[in-house]
Amino acid sequence: MTTNLRGILAPALTAVTDDFQIDQERTIAHYAWLLENGCDGVLVFGTTSEANSFSVAERKRLLEQAVEAGIKPERLLVGTGCCAFADSIELTKHAVQIGCAGVLMLPPFYYKQLSGDGLFRYFASLIERVANDSWKLYLYHIPPIAIVPFSFSLIEKLIAHYPEIVAGIKDSSGDFEHTKELIKRFARPGFDVFPGNESTLLAALRMGAAGCIPGTANVYARLLQTIFRARQTAEAEEHQSLVSKCRQVILGYPLIPALKAIISRMRVDLAWKNVQPPLSPLPEFELEGLLEKLTAAGFDWPASRRIA
Amino acid sequence: MTTNLRGILAPALTAVTDDFQIDQERTIAHYAWLLENGCDGVLVFGTTSEANSFSVAERKRLLEQAVEAGIKPERLLVGTGCCAFADSIELTKHAVQIGCAGVLMLPPFYYKQLSGDGLFRYFASLIERVANDSWKLYLYHIPPIAIVPFSFSLIEKLIAHYPEIVAGIKDSSGDFEHTKELIKRFARPGFDVFPGNESTLLAALRMGAAGCIPGTANVYARLLQTIFRARQTAEAEEHQSLVSKCRQVILGYPLIPALKAIISRMRVDLAWKNVQPPLSPLPEFELEGLLEKLTAAGFDWPASRRIA
Repeated sequence: MTTNLRGILAPALTAVTDDFQIDQERTIAHYAWLLENGCDGVLVFGTTSEANSFSVAERKRLLEQAVEAGIKPERLLVGTGCCAFADSIELTKHAVQIGCAGVLMLPPFYYKQLSGDGLFRYFASLIERVANDSWKLYLYHIPPIAIVPFSFSLIEKLIAHYPEIVAGIKDSSGDFEHTKELIKRFARPGFDVFPGNESTLLAALRMGAAGCIPGTANVYARLLQTIFRARQTAEAEEHQSLVSKCRQVILGYPLIPALKAIISRMRVDLAWKNVQPPLSPLPEFELEGLLEKLTAAGFDWPASRRIA
Repeated sequence: MTTNLRGILAPALTAVTDDFQIDQERTIAHYAWLLENGCDGVLVFGTTSEANSFSVAERKRLLEQAVEAGIKPERLLVGTGCCAFADSIELTKHAVQIGCAGVLMLPPFYYKQLSGDGLFRYFASLIERVANDSWKLYLYHIPPIAIVPFSFSLIEKLIAHYPEIVAGIKDSSGDFEHTKELIKRFARPGFDVFPGNESTLLAALRMGAAGCIPGTANVYARLLQTIFRARQTAEAEEHQSLVSKCRQVILGYPLIPALKAIISRMRVDLAWKNVQPPLSPLPEFELEGLLEKLTAAGFDWPASRRIA
């Protein structure tokens, strides 16, 4: 772990079998495709990956298989935050042992409106138990789903106590004002801010964001990469405008089923439509409408099938 | 599993060690104490038990140890609802094999605002995989914490499809109007409604509730039992008034740390104050205030130490 992961990261979709198991082969092939098609890294087990819908054993097995199949661990960020303290420790130690670039941790998200300093105690106790000096912890702020937030004061305290370990934050608040505030307060060499929302990617990059980790990178990472690499050009602004239009279209549908349905069409592979309960697959007629709207917005989705 | 559990059930506190492990000895002794002091049954791994703060392996081990120690499984309801489909199945099968009176299932609570019929598909797929005709599934409705609710239409559909298995609901909405509506729509022989809120216990019982499963039963189940047994008497109304006052006092504090602190004082055992992160233990000065207020409300908390 010499340099920290930056750039366009996809919170990779997890393919599932008809029997609600992780489809390792399809999932790992998708990781490889993402890394060859615009992604600087892959987030294994983010929200878009349906991470928390799988058990600890299933998650460890997939990560091991991915690395055995040749996916470089230094290109991987691994989601490891669970409700159970023991689960979060087990997944974190596992990802660290494998040599992954970092872990992205949700706060424990069952109890809401916590009193006192419980969240700090949770992270401090976990960091002590991982007992390793050379790993990178990224905080996963996603209040629309996890409800439990990372407050500014918690972030500050974690950075102050563990400056070598706490390496950044993914901001999936969907609120650009919040992203700007995070960048202003905390972004520095050694602490990276990644918005989850790509509709403000260019503005965030120009302010000092380290990249972006949006669900839609599963589909159009190459387009996001052109913005990341050419952020000072007028061309980037055009691409940003296209990206923002596409995001608007996709947000009209349940995100994970929609992304999986698009991938299933790109790969001509119906199995990709499967989602793990409690999610529901996107009905075929809705997929038709979605693809038409994406085309109308200017996105050449069939071209995304190509390997770069 | 001949007759369904009814009456006063405690969602039992889980004692934890200084090292964030389940303290099996203290926890199991607490189950025994509850069953001897007013409880008709014990809910192992409810919200008050910090269930989701422990791993699947930790939860299975505790249940096995409890039964080995002589706790009768037919007095136990077991919380088995997790975010991960595989975890919920594993815990449910385990509780069924052990012969517990039933399982109380949270909905999968990571994803919010689900579209389509995903929650029904989740429960239907789970029931098929448990593949057993003689177990009882209780639904755990606790929107203030899980956020994801059991809608009336979902309950109706589950009862219609699995009338022999879906046996009741715990309503921890904290909204008596909602409890009344549940009783009106669904209560019948074979489907029991248990409010989580004891401040309306008497009214709920008179309407047809099967009992109650409130966190405070860890402390004053005997008092609740007097209401349950003598619901038509004036004495029950007096007890209800005392219970409602006590609840008001306790709600001024974070519930789980407060209940554990009271138990630690009753048992003269500091270890009982421990909570699992992300919760924080109740500071000693707050406990003093809480006990004074309980006494002022008329509750003889030191007497609760006695074994009946």
